[in-house]
Amino acid sequence: MSLHDLQQRLADFAHRRDWEQFHTPKNLVMALAGEAGELVELFQWLTAAQSSELMSDPYRAEQVRDEMADVFSYLLRLADVLDVDLEAALRAKIARNEQRYPEELARGRAEKHNQLLERKHQSE
Amino acid sequence: MSLHDLQQRLADFAHRRDWEQFHTPKNLVMALAGEAGELVELFQWLTAAQSSELMSDPYRAEQVRDEMADVFSYLLRLADVLDVDLEAALRAKIARNEQRYPEELARGRAEKHNQLLERKHQSE
Amino acid sequence: MSLHDLQQRLADFAHRRDWEQFHTPKNLVMALAGEAGELVELFQWLTAAQSSELMSDPYRAEQVRDEMADVFSYLLRLADVLDVDLEAALRAKIARNEQRYPEELARGRAEKHNQLLERKHQSE
Amino acid sequence: MSLHDLQQRLADFAHRRDWEQFHTPKNLVMALAGEAGELVELFQWLTAAQSSELMSDPYRAEQVRDEMADVFSYLLRLADVLDVDLEAALRAKIARNEQRYPEELARGRAEKHNQLLERKHQSE
Repeated sequence: MSLHDLQQRLADFAHRRDWEQFHTPKNLVMALAGEAGELVELFQWLTAAQSSELMSDPYRAEQVRDEMADVFSYLLRLADVLDVDLEAALRAKIARNEQRYPEELARGRAEKHNQLLERKHQSE
Repeated sequence: MSLHDLQQRLADFAHRRDWEQFHTPKNLVMALAGEAGELVELFQWLTAAQSSELMSDPYRAEQVRDEMADVFSYLLRLADVLDVDLEAALRAKIARNEQRYPEELARGRAEKHNQLLERKHQSE
Repeated sequence: MSLHDLQQRLADFAHRRDWEQFHTPKNLVMALAGEAGELVELFQWLTAAQSSELMSDPYRAEQVRDEMADVFSYLLRLADVLDVDLEAALRAKIARNEQRYPEELARGRAEKHNQLLERKHQSE
Repeated sequence: MSLHDLQQRLADFAHRRDWEQFHTPKNLVMALAGEAGELVELFQWLTAAQSSELMSDPYRAEQVRDEMADVFSYLLRLADVLDVDLEAALRAKIARNEQRYPEELARGRAEKHNQLLERKHQSE
């Protein structure tokens, strides 16, 4: 299924329940943030190593998949009501980040592009 | 492009910058929550009506697409490192919600499934 | 009780359960974000008017107080482990915002200070 | 200054700018979540150890204090408009958690109270 098909299924689901009245962009953004918060809660007390092993616990794995599906569904609903082409937006983002984070400059560094640039200017 | 192809592009982007060390599940979940927070900030002072009109302002529309792309990219990276099939997870979610939110019961109501059930039992 | 006293009670609570190992700044920030997400969920489908009436429902009011207490407790724990004086930080913030948001310029406008400044410069 | 005094200063600040119209409970909850997201971003790529050292960098320390002040200010504003006594809510929470997390059961365990209880019942 394409992103568009998934959006259509979610739109149908909402329509058949008369939920469009609740699905304003503002409300959907809140719902997305709420689900992101639930995902955070699954990871908050774990070490980095434990977070990488979480999926070997079937119960936890199901919770993670479930919350990720919730985040995904509200992101798709939001894209639908705002008429945003998510794939195009992501591809544009990647293209911009290719410029902002040149490989040699960004390698092994978790810094924002403006910080990277600052360092580059200082070393020149 | 499929979700898998998008995930692959993001994995390549990270790999070429030696960023896998930062992309633990725990850290990616935080990054996703941070981007969801930035999306919230674009909508926080708007009325519901204003939130529906936001995309008619080209500058704001670009910000929205940009933050949505950020959320999407971290969700895809997380799915990749956790080996979660996002589309399958979403389809399973929709199937479960078809059960949890029967149309006649859920129509026009923004309530959690357990609240809906409670009401149903009370009226029986 | 002062903020310091509240922080001390929370520190004691954690210490007696040997929870300091979990209360790294990074983990506490995640816990705070998770609780903020739960608070968001209580408001996400409400209109602005409904959100102002929420506390007249005793069940909902209790949920709101509960989630606000959770956010507050993690904010206080974080301030404790990072040795941040929350009241001083807030007073410094207010002082800075008095500069950034001059009354005549900011009146009735939900804009960031840099946008306000831009408008001011354009009108000069 | 008491929490009440801080709330009053923030209320005055908003009033003098005619910002009460924006400060609905729903909007303030979003603002709080947005600021929590900014706080998360400061910590997302750090190891637990790095997160404990962050305050030794004066620039980063200032950012952390700044974002914590933002979270605090929106939490106080929300408490004001909802007429929630934050200190009372926190004390009630601590009292409840004393019951939910008995020291001997919770020691060294980052688990929710319902999970702790489940384990207790299984071992009986």
